[in-house]
Amino acid sequence: MLSSFAAQWLPAIEAEMRAVLASEENAVAAHYGMMHYHMGWVNAHFEAESLPAGKRLRPLLCLMACAEMGGTPAQALPAAAAVEILHNFSLVHDDIEDGDETRRHRPTVWKLWGVPQAINVGDAMFALSFAAVQRLADRGVPAATTLAALRIFTEMCVALTEGQHLDMSFETRSVVPVDEYLRMIQGKTAALIGASVAIGGLVGGAAPGRDEALRRFGQSIGLAFQIQDDMLGIWGDPSVTGKAAGNDILRRKKSLPLLHALGDADVGADLAKILERADFGAAELPTALALLDAAGSRAYAATLMESYYAAGLSSLQAALGERAEQSLLGSTAQWLMQRNS
Amino acid sequence: MLSSFAAQWLPAIEAEMRAVLASEENAVAAHYGMMHYHMGWVNAHFEAESLPAGKRLRPLLCLMACAEMGGTPAQALPAAAAVEILHNFSLVHDDIEDGDETRRHRPTVWKLWGVPQAINVGDAMFALSFAAVQRLADRGVPAATTLAALRIFTEMCVALTEGQHLDMSFETRSVVPVDEYLRMIQGKTAALIGASVAIGGLVGGAAPGRDEALRRFGQSIGLAFQIQDDMLGIWGDPSVTGKAAGNDILRRKKSLPLLHALGDADVGADLAKILERADFGAAELPTALALLDAAGSRAYAATLMESYYAAGLSSLQAALGERAEQSLLGSTAQWLMQRNS
Repeated sequence: MLSSFAAQWLPAIEAEMRAVLASEENAVAAHYGMMHYHMGWVNAHFEAESLPAGKRLRPLLCLMACAEMGGTPAQALPAAAAVEILHNFSLVHDDIEDGDETRRHRPTVWKLWGVPQAINVGDAMFALSFAAVQRLADRGVPAATTLAALRIFTEMCVALTEGQHLDMSFETRSVVPVDEYLRMIQGKTAALIGASVAIGGLVGGAAPGRDEALRRFGQSIGLAFQIQDDMLGIWGDPSVTGKAAGNDILRRKKSLPLLHALGDADVGADLAKILERADFGAAELPTALALLDAAGSRAYAATLMESYYAAGLSSLQAALGERAEQSLLGSTAQWLMQRNS
Repeated sequence: MLSSFAAQWLPAIEAEMRAVLASEENAVAAHYGMMHYHMGWVNAHFEAESLPAGKRLRPLLCLMACAEMGGTPAQALPAAAAVEILHNFSLVHDDIEDGDETRRHRPTVWKLWGVPQAINVGDAMFALSFAAVQRLADRGVPAATTLAALRIFTEMCVALTEGQHLDMSFETRSVVPVDEYLRMIQGKTAALIGASVAIGGLVGGAAPGRDEALRRFGQSIGLAFQIQDDMLGIWGDPSVTGKAAGNDILRRKKSLPLLHALGDADVGADLAKILERADFGAAELPTALALLDAAGSRAYAATLMESYYAAGLSSLQAALGERAEQSLLGSTAQWLMQRNS
């Protein structure tokens, strides 16, 4: 069901994004070319290239929410394009902020064209994501609904920058309490998924209150999704994830299980001491993992993930009633929770 | 008249911007603190500081356009705040892109808190400028009008990134034709002034077509304003501008008069040769200025500036009729053209 929905709508999502990220003007061809490169549509010489597209999870959730509310997904395509373009804007700027030189096995925009152009390319995609939302009005969506969608979209953009601010500020701190971490991923990951679902629902005709329930569903699922990601980063099967066992521990990444163990009264100090060692590496990994076990960090993360998943389902029931679990959104949430990479 | 209008509305513009750039949440206090620092409201320790505010030219033009269309300026305050916040977002990112370490005699945001946080602070102000426009609906502006305002605002944001792209790409080129330069400042400077006036007019009740005439007025005045800036950067009185005589020539800044002279069939090659010298400085300035004179570059710029000013007035007449020159907008345009710093 999910793969047939995706197969049906992915080409239209891609076409809508291409229509938004377009200019006829030759003088700014490189400006748009860099956007197209980031999207995986062209290579570094701006020649057409067909990279496998990303999952496009957010736009698909947007269209599903529209369908579940009885709307026509085609009408929500501008919103679907908007959330995916916004997501990609944030990746362009994140890559600069984190100093990441590759993304999806290719050099990042800043690496190829420099930080100044990359900042500006991100800004353009940011602006164009708003232009995409406004195209809703061209598809017959009433002005008041389009405006409501823009409000949700804008609040999410602000939340995204707040989450990013917190994430960057964590880098300069040795101790980050778990609740602050959850506040961070609420802004950095969950807000966008929440907005994707809420806006799709609004376009599909969700009555006031229902779009809010859909937003809460998306946010909860987004939190569960991120915690799952954190767990896979430590305990994922290397043959499936393509990353080394304990990868995020080796990178000292402040993800949920590690922060939980660091905050543990019994093992926290020991774990911190190991991580602080200049020569920390694969040899110390078993000891570090044993400390996470002793703190019960894996079970803690799993329980938290499941509670967010349950909260998400409960919000979905508030929006859809009894059919929630069997719905497209319910099945997608379930499918996401079963992934192993 | 202008100063009394400014005195009347500047405090309300400032209050509206403060209401938009605000968060009650302690965890993100530094995120908003950096925005407040850039706006000149606090110092680097986030303590209240009363720096003299900027000219606030764009928000004042927005409110004036609203008044001229018979509207209540108070209703357009959210739009006025939006254009000024957007302008300031662009300054935060420009400072990173240009590597500028000071602005208004204080360290820039990136200089104090690093490039990653500064990119993110700019992104937040970008998002919040959209939130500001949406506050129009809270002041009783109809959804369709608010949406129309958002469209103009978004198109302007895209134009801004296009202008910035062109400006940055000029740095890597030795020759830039004058028409490409004009296309650049059209995006980088004129689009925002055009949007400020058009949106103010829309909120004030401008009939379709009239807001477009107002936009053309703002754009033309914006182009004239930038060319005037270029002239002051070369021939301005150092005792008034606070900059050295011929400052922009010494900096090899690709402004209109210099590009005109470089494109001159007779003197262009000679001028290029002088500018390329590694030891180019004050000693060569008289020769360079003489070549600009020989090319007639000052007269060329003055004539172009006046033609944009005249085109602006003509657009203003299309919007306001005979009273255009005596209107707030007409007087402001005239006042801008008389400035000497």
